[in-house]
Amino acid sequence: MSLFPHIYTYKMDNLALFEANNVPLTPITFLKRASECYPNRTSIIYGQTRFTWPQTYDRCCRLAASLLSLNITRYDVVSILAPNIPAMYEMHFAVPMTGAVLNPINTRLDAKTIAIILRHAQPKCLFVDYTFAPLIQEVLRLLPFDASKLHPLIISIIEIDSTTKRSSMELDYEGLIRKGDLTLSSSASLFRVHNEHDPISLNYTSGTTSEPKGVVISHRGAYLTALSSILGWEMGMCPVYLWTLPMFHGNGWAHTWSVAARGGTNVCIRNVTAVEIYKNIGLHGVTHMSCVPTVFRILLEGSRTNQSHKSLPVRVLTGGSSPPAALLEKVERLGFQVMHVYGLTEASGAALYCEWQDEWNRLPKHQQMKLKARQGVRNITLDEVDVKNTKTRESVPRDGITMGEIVLKGNIVMKGYLKNPKATSEVFKHGWLNTGDIGVIHPDGHIEIKDRSKDIIISGGENISSIEVERVLYEHQKVLEAAVVAMPHPLWGETPCAFVVLNQGETNQRDREKESVAKEGDLIKYCRENMPHFMCPRKVVFLEELPKNGNGKILKPNLRDIAKGLVVDEDDTRSKKVQGRGGNNVSSRL
Amino acid sequence: MSLFPHIYTYKMDNLALFEANNVPLTPITFLKRASECYPNRTSIIYGQTRFTWPQTYDRCCRLAASLLSLNITRYDVVSILAPNIPAMYEMHFAVPMTGAVLNPINTRLDAKTIAIILRHAQPKCLFVDYTFAPLIQEVLRLLPFDASKLHPLIISIIEIDSTTKRSSMELDYEGLIRKGDLTLSSSASLFRVHNEHDPISLNYTSGTTSEPKGVVISHRGAYLTALSSILGWEMGMCPVYLWTLPMFHGNGWAHTWSVAARGGTNVCIRNVTAVEIYKNIGLHGVTHMSCVPTVFRILLEGSRTNQSHKSLPVRVLTGGSSPPAALLEKVERLGFQVMHVYGLTEASGAALYCEWQDEWNRLPKHQQMKLKARQGVRNITLDEVDVKNTKTRESVPRDGITMGEIVLKGNIVMKGYLKNPKATSEVFKHGWLNTGDIGVIHPDGHIEIKDRSKDIIISGGENISSIEVERVLYEHQKVLEAAVVAMPHPLWGETPCAFVVLNQGETNQRDREKESVAKEGDLIKYCRENMPHFMCPRKVVFLEELPKNGNGKILKPNLRDIAKGLVVDEDDTRSKKVQGRGGNNVSSRL
Repeated sequence: MSLFPHIYTYKMDNLALFEANNVPLTPITFLKRASECYPNRTSIIYGQTRFTWPQTYDRCCRLAASLLSLNITRYDVVSILAPNIPAMYEMHFAVPMTGAVLNPINTRLDAKTIAIILRHAQPKCLFVDYTFAPLIQEVLRLLPFDASKLHPLIISIIEIDSTTKRSSMELDYEGLIRKGDLTLSSSASLFRVHNEHDPISLNYTSGTTSEPKGVVISHRGAYLTALSSILGWEMGMCPVYLWTLPMFHGNGWAHTWSVAARGGTNVCIRNVTAVEIYKNIGLHGVTHMSCVPTVFRILLEGSRTNQSHKSLPVRVLTGGSSPPAALLEKVERLGFQVMHVYGLTEASGAALYCEWQDEWNRLPKHQQMKLKARQGVRNITLDEVDVKNTKTRESVPRDGITMGEIVLKGNIVMKGYLKNPKATSEVFKHGWLNTGDIGVIHPDGHIEIKDRSKDIIISGGENISSIEVERVLYEHQKVLEAAVVAMPHPLWGETPCAFVVLNQGETNQRDREKESVAKEGDLIKYCRENMPHFMCPRKVVFLEELPKNGNGKILKPNLRDIAKGLVVDEDDTRSKKVQGRGGNNVSSRL
Repeated sequence: MSLFPHIYTYKMDNLALFEANNVPLTPITFLKRASECYPNRTSIIYGQTRFTWPQTYDRCCRLAASLLSLNITRYDVVSILAPNIPAMYEMHFAVPMTGAVLNPINTRLDAKTIAIILRHAQPKCLFVDYTFAPLIQEVLRLLPFDASKLHPLIISIIEIDSTTKRSSMELDYEGLIRKGDLTLSSSASLFRVHNEHDPISLNYTSGTTSEPKGVVISHRGAYLTALSSILGWEMGMCPVYLWTLPMFHGNGWAHTWSVAARGGTNVCIRNVTAVEIYKNIGLHGVTHMSCVPTVFRILLEGSRTNQSHKSLPVRVLTGGSSPPAALLEKVERLGFQVMHVYGLTEASGAALYCEWQDEWNRLPKHQQMKLKARQGVRNITLDEVDVKNTKTRESVPRDGITMGEIVLKGNIVMKGYLKNPKATSEVFKHGWLNTGDIGVIHPDGHIEIKDRSKDIIISGGENISSIEVERVLYEHQKVLEAAVVAMPHPLWGETPCAFVVLNQGETNQRDREKESVAKEGDLIKYCRENMPHFMCPRKVVFLEELPKNGNGKILKPNLRDIAKGLVVDEDDTRSKKVQGRGGNNVSSRL
């Protein structure tokens, strides 16, 4: 068969790998590249503080050198409890440069949960922003170590432009940077990782039900996720990126590294408030930001008093939960160009991108927003995505109707849960990352989530997607936020119960204009006009605020607990007054 | 030091790799993704033929299945001799889907060189476009096999929309696709490669001096190059890509795979003529194309008679040789937005991108073009680039003046030269890919090539960059093309000799308006006014066309041979008439 069988013995693959062509994939190299390729560009803006990329490079190298001198080494965990300040950004490079693993802790957690995380992660040292000093004292009291013998290595981070003098003995962040001795370890060696499958980051999921699990991300996974974020979002050169998404949240969906790869500017802010957001957009020409949809509420309310709209459009990536079409439309009207992604900590960041299709331009705006609210298609570095029948594990048809569990496969998927082989093998069963999210595939290939598997409401054997009910509620002009969960029903087993926050304007007017306020009966009537009857909520509870976890996700388990205490009278679409344990707890839980 | 030394034994890295999170990197997955995520988009346009991504996916799977049934397997070489037709594109996926290695052969080579390549590559089969049937007959006569026993497996590619009937026995491309039996091998298995370091492509360099060398590219390298092309060029979703760059040229700088990754449309054309280019731009809304700067000449000359300018701007990536600023300016005036890259087959495609800097917008147009003509900064997937003193191998200062050899390191660098350990170890000496190109690093991090090391002219001990002399010549309004090489000089050793093609308008007028034509003396005078005297050419030879290789690169060795036969009179800046062997050969060589 061969042209030359007599010499067809020379294997194509006998070429060894060379130093010149085999380099472990790691996002920390983006920092070195940025300092060399974008030497004049601003890397970080934080209040009055500004750094260029060569300065950030230098600070990270020095910090890494100091960490090495503290015996931080490969596989060690280094935890940090801090908001989106420069130190938080720098540590995304400096810590893995030593071979250690960064563990950014959700700052909105309580002392008990943080103690659980520290006990599990076993960090060699812990960096703490000064504002969390009291919290960490409380955490340390909960930890089971003998303080006389084993002193935790705690490094404090004070305000970067602070002039407060401290003892030279005390370990503090800026002190470590100052003392970093680059003669001890060449900066080149800091950018070589042993193995691209080595862990780079340890991120605890903010489990709404169970104890947090430690998601281990590899250098290779982080590298590919960082690139795919740029690709999926079509992030051009030199973005000005406003840090509204917490960096502790899946490393800011890996955008910590993406911004370096693009030679962009990180605008860091301590507090995500409307004033801070609009001020920084106006001052620095912000081009990009990411956030969970709950931040849209801040943007909408703040838009009344903040006048930085001339600086818009800003491109916004949103995920974490499905943004209702009506909410998307409101935010886009302000000048934010929203792209919707679906991600999870277990996939290092965004896995699906709702890529815009040219043919959608011809559709009415509202229809466009409905399409935009779908989760989309897999990012380029995700090898496969599928929707599987939860029982047979067969792929569902691409009909936009048949539901199944969304499963993922690819290099951006985590290595596993730390010290939790049971949960790891469970989540990787059948050769996929099983997300626990229930969705459909549309004929155009776009995936749409219908619900978390545990949030599905099963009423008389019919699956009701809580998200679909919420979508209709959001379209009501008086509804600011809505969450729908199952409540017990004597005949149907379960039935939907809605928790609703009204627009602030509506709330304020409530006393004055009682007649015009959306009442429970009105909302239920509205639902019956806009969806199949069996999907309609039989109970609507009005709240000032929905309960949320540290990442801004609505805590449906808490709402379910409340709903369990509510009883529906079968003869009436209106429920009787709250009874039992759930009812008593409403205010204390929220 | 640890918070919990008593339990600090659990290694971070004990997580095994799972099927769900460890997938070999390969660009062939982009095809599967495109068919799933962009099912309605056009993948290929070729004359009246159009395919969607699911159709291209199906055709590639069938072709791969047929190849498997022909016993094509891992590490086998499959060669192809074809222009930019759909088959050429499809084989970039179908061949590696079988584990085999694609070897696209430069169609502009002569029979002797093709025979050398086939003898070296040992393909198991060879696909030949019908227009090259006579050429391949000539090639086969040069090959040392016993025709009675060993029949080469040659597969012909006829025009895709041809209605010609052929015997069912004859092996032809469309027949293989028709016969491809997907029940024998699941399409899923076709998208799994054994190892991401496996070779995907074998591309012979069009060596201007020596025998061609077989550059082996890995799946991993091709994957990363394809992504970095999108990133470096900021290629958005759904580009319409016109194939002016031959796909045999380093797999079209890996854009074969990039376009699939973006769900784009490949506009294939057989012949790169002004008529074809402008017609297709007008018909299909072309957004992107790539070419060597010599194609600019076609664009410029064709612009007079072709009126598709309303469809411009088209974004053009150019590389292969430095585009003179004056030429860039002319092409941009037509509506082409040019980005300059530096690449080489040994780096799988473009390695440096001349990324636009915002501050350049404030500069005059001509100055902008000068900056744009520099080679730029390394692409994101290239780990390192440096410029090394050729003797000490130390890095040169970033001063924009000190010359050295450009060296590269990273995963996009080839695996090596096939069956050529000597050349491989030579090119990888000192742990880098040594490019043989001489350049400088500017303070802003951008690299600028001064010359190929062998093209540098050494005059009285001074290095003269032939590219710099050419740049000045190109700025002369009457010069269309220029190439400068060394000619012997009795006193200085070497001195520059220029070969110049005048604008067609100038050539036509030459007879009529002899006085106004740029003459040798005029050009030399012009040079003396615009560059240091020692750099000025002492001889200018006017040609109708410059000699070029199959990739459109100017063959400087041929010009050097001519220049060797020219003699400079030391007392005069004008040379004497041609003497010796070189002179006699001028016309036959060109």
